[in-house]
Amino acid sequence: MPDPRFFECGLVLTLAEISRIVGGDLVLPANCEQEIRGLASLGSAKVFDLVYLESARHLPHLARTSAGACLIRRDMVEAASAVSSVARVSLIVVNDPKLAFITIANVLHPERCAISGIDPTAIVAPSAYIDPTAIISAGAVICDRARIGARSLIGEQAVIRSDVEIGTDCNIHARVIVSHALVGNRVTIHSGACIGRAGFGFHPAPSGLQRVPQLGRVILHDDVEIGANSCIDRGTLDDTVIGRGSKIDNLVQIGHNCQLGSYCIIAAQTGLAGSVVVEDGAIMGGQVGIADHLTIGRGAKLAAQSGVLRDVPPGEVQGGSPARSIKLWLRAMSRDMNLGRIQKS
Amino acid sequence: MPDPRFFECGLVLTLAEISRIVGGDLVLPANCEQEIRGLASLGSAKVFDLVYLESARHLPHLARTSAGACLIRRDMVEAASAVSSVARVSLIVVNDPKLAFITIANVLHPERCAISGIDPTAIVAPSAYIDPTAIISAGAVICDRARIGARSLIGEQAVIRSDVEIGTDCNIHARVIVSHALVGNRVTIHSGACIGRAGFGFHPAPSGLQRVPQLGRVILHDDVEIGANSCIDRGTLDDTVIGRGSKIDNLVQIGHNCQLGSYCIIAAQTGLAGSVVVEDGAIMGGQVGIADHLTIGRGAKLAAQSGVLRDVPPGEVQGGSPARSIKLWLRAMSRDMNLGRIQKS
Amino acid sequence: MPDPRFFECGLVLTLAEISRIVGGDLVLPANCEQEIRGLASLGSAKVFDLVYLESARHLPHLARTSAGACLIRRDMVEAASAVSSVARVSLIVVNDPKLAFITIANVLHPERCAISGIDPTAIVAPSAYIDPTAIISAGAVICDRARIGARSLIGEQAVIRSDVEIGTDCNIHARVIVSHALVGNRVTIHSGACIGRAGFGFHPAPSGLQRVPQLGRVILHDDVEIGANSCIDRGTLDDTVIGRGSKIDNLVQIGHNCQLGSYCIIAAQTGLAGSVVVEDGAIMGGQVGIADHLTIGRGAKLAAQSGVLRDVPPGEVQGGSPARSIKLWLRAMSRDMNLGRIQKS
Repeated sequence: MPDPRFFECGLVLTLAEISRIVGGDLVLPANCEQEIRGLASLGSAKVFDLVYLESARHLPHLARTSAGACLIRRDMVEAASAVSSVARVSLIVVNDPKLAFITIANVLHPERCAISGIDPTAIVAPSAYIDPTAIISAGAVICDRARIGARSLIGEQAVIRSDVEIGTDCNIHARVIVSHALVGNRVTIHSGACIGRAGFGFHPAPSGLQRVPQLGRVILHDDVEIGANSCIDRGTLDDTVIGRGSKIDNLVQIGHNCQLGSYCIIAAQTGLAGSVVVEDGAIMGGQVGIADHLTIGRGAKLAAQSGVLRDVPPGEVQGGSPARSIKLWLRAMSRDMNLGRIQKS
Repeated sequence: MPDPRFFECGLVLTLAEISRIVGGDLVLPANCEQEIRGLASLGSAKVFDLVYLESARHLPHLARTSAGACLIRRDMVEAASAVSSVARVSLIVVNDPKLAFITIANVLHPERCAISGIDPTAIVAPSAYIDPTAIISAGAVICDRARIGARSLIGEQAVIRSDVEIGTDCNIHARVIVSHALVGNRVTIHSGACIGRAGFGFHPAPSGLQRVPQLGRVILHDDVEIGANSCIDRGTLDDTVIGRGSKIDNLVQIGHNCQLGSYCIIAAQTGLAGSVVVEDGAIMGGQVGIADHLTIGRGAKLAAQSGVLRDVPPGEVQGGSPARSIKLWLRAMSRDMNLGRIQKS
Repeated sequence: MPDPRFFECGLVLTLAEISRIVGGDLVLPANCEQEIRGLASLGSAKVFDLVYLESARHLPHLARTSAGACLIRRDMVEAASAVSSVARVSLIVVNDPKLAFITIANVLHPERCAISGIDPTAIVAPSAYIDPTAIISAGAVICDRARIGARSLIGEQAVIRSDVEIGTDCNIHARVIVSHALVGNRVTIHSGACIGRAGFGFHPAPSGLQRVPQLGRVILHDDVEIGANSCIDRGTLDDTVIGRGSKIDNLVQIGHNCQLGSYCIIAAQTGLAGSVVVEDGAIMGGQVGIADHLTIGRGAKLAAQSGVLRDVPPGEVQGGSPARSIKLWLRAMSRDMNLGRIQKS
């Protein structure tokens, strides 16, 4: 069960209530009045905890769990019933156990609500607009003419620079800096991220390397998430754009003028050079690198540590450095892994 | 045209004025009195915007642009005149269109000047010296005996630790931390960078891993630029040095005792282990890794994601992990990309 | 000698005192009353400096040094005596010259002690507990019910969020953020590190990508060190754990639910995906990537830029991407480096 010091706890739900919330069916002999007080993994659950079974691969863990109840798909009930502990574990049948688990998590352990208003230690420019329902935390700096929308939270020590707009229901964590940017609604930016820096562009001139002015902005659309200590540089002349619902992990670098579509997922430590286009739904593993001016097609998938030097067609799965089709990449891997045996023969 | 909320706008230049500023020639039938109010890329330009043509590769974009005027090299005028839209676009002939564009950008959209002085919310030690023309922003912390030179800007929440010296005309952005460092003139450090941390050195001792004291400094010479959330560790006994005019991108790691020469360029997410020597003018792509105690020769170039395990001779171009000459690297790439076909034959 | 502006200096030790402190033997004709005032590398030492000889490889530097005295292993004294400058350099014989050097460094240049107490500009919640011997620096934010142990230092602008516990003798540097975490004793966290972020987990739902609640914590055991701008995400249901004495460099990403054992060493820019287990004493070079749910065995070693896709057995040394045994990796390297010659033959 989550540590009550860090997470809201104390609510109790009966199995009947849980079934109703997630639209599930209780499998007999479950007791409708059985109480659930927390959530846990299969391995660490106690008798008042709810767990979920993600796939058949985890059945051995279910066999040993001490949980009180388990969210499960209908097609797994039979297999689950065959494992020993299940006599003690009530089963709740749902279409998507993980989604149901998330739903209950949000009920049992809601995010703690900070009290709306401006902390007396925050530094807010008189010309800034702060919605009365917004929360400005200790030590945050809100510069001239910046706008903070309804119910948005600005964390401790965060800096919102001049003229930046933050939409509604955003969560801008501690120590974030946002400049030259328009931020949509329900956007989360994690601690230490740096949004809107002047990108890396220099031109050789007789007097040395001359900085190229960076006159664009960063546009973060609704439901975007940016990880801790990640950097999104602003555009040179046009904008750097992160499309609706795209999720970016920690320590990621997005160069100037990049254009990400909707619902892209980019794992930690990946870097996009300047002017890369990523179409809707593309997915990248960690530590991927993409050269400038390339296009990653709609729904394409890139394995971790890929090094992309050419456009990636829509839907294609690639890996390796330089990145190539998964087929060619697996062949090279197999060759490298068998190098010893081949040479011995 | 840049968003006037974020960039100084409003100035209008005639083509005659622009030509005079950049030393260019107006090509007929350009109207000397034609007005330019902003800058844009070829694709998004409007009739009052100035654009530039970087290479013949962009001629198709020039053909479709709605810009009012274009900076161009003399040897491209003929080709440009052959494309349709050019009847509407005035051409200004210069030696280096990009440099001319940068010059006009700095005239049309100068950086906003903050008002010099110390923000009342900044925390400045009585023993610190702040030049009267310097700018100390909201929430910045200037520790004992630190010195901030003329016209230098210290951003919001930045921390300048004890005895650090910052030269003149520097731009130390929000949330930077500088300790154990001497910083030259016209140095830019972007948000979240960490300058002067005690480097990563441990020695196995009977009582566990023992930290090696880090008693050196970081020296940033004139015109250096350090990217957002990058880390430059201080030296162990000698100093970590970044030479004049070198430019370092975001999320870069420079280990203790590294010595960079002048005008080196290091792209995002590259990492240098301890005691690496980088000679003048060397260039590295993103996500390069360099093992400790190596020397990267004068003017050498390393492709993105290179993994360098040996010294790189001056002027050499290398790529791959482990890094090798571009010739060998391209051969390995070609082999990997053709692996399927070879095995089928 | 270290710059006295940045490091405590002024103490003088005689060779006799140094020998006594490190348990060493003075080799004749050393003068017991000879004075040492600082530490330096072989190359930059002056006559009042102490140096150390790490291995026979550095004998040429010893031959040219201007140092006053050198810590040395007994088995190197003869070779050292044969090089020219040694007539002027007193030798102190010890078992472990580097460890002895560290010991003297900590005597000659102790860390500057900040005065305990709470800086008037720090923002401390009334419900927080600050040990009277702790130091809370300028602009730091200590949130509700957080606890700071004896002699621990919280740096400038650092943010310690609600209910976090920091043990004794910790060094939490400027601009660190710690949330949802329990921190042991003698832990160092360098500037800009982000401890306890909600990890990167999303589940596809009809309404788009749904955030998976992250209800675990981060546990940092005694003597852990975390580098600048590194990120340690908190667990999903269980905890993310960094074991006793483990050392993590700058810009490292540790995903949710990772479990590191004791005395692991992880170099800069390495990334661990979620739920990775790293057993005691494992060592990773820089820019290593490890896929989720893998186990890195006790004492295993991973070369820089390794990309790990399978469990690594205890004690094994691996390299390459995908990572394989050092033997296979070296074979592939040798093949790639000789690709030209092979094709020519």
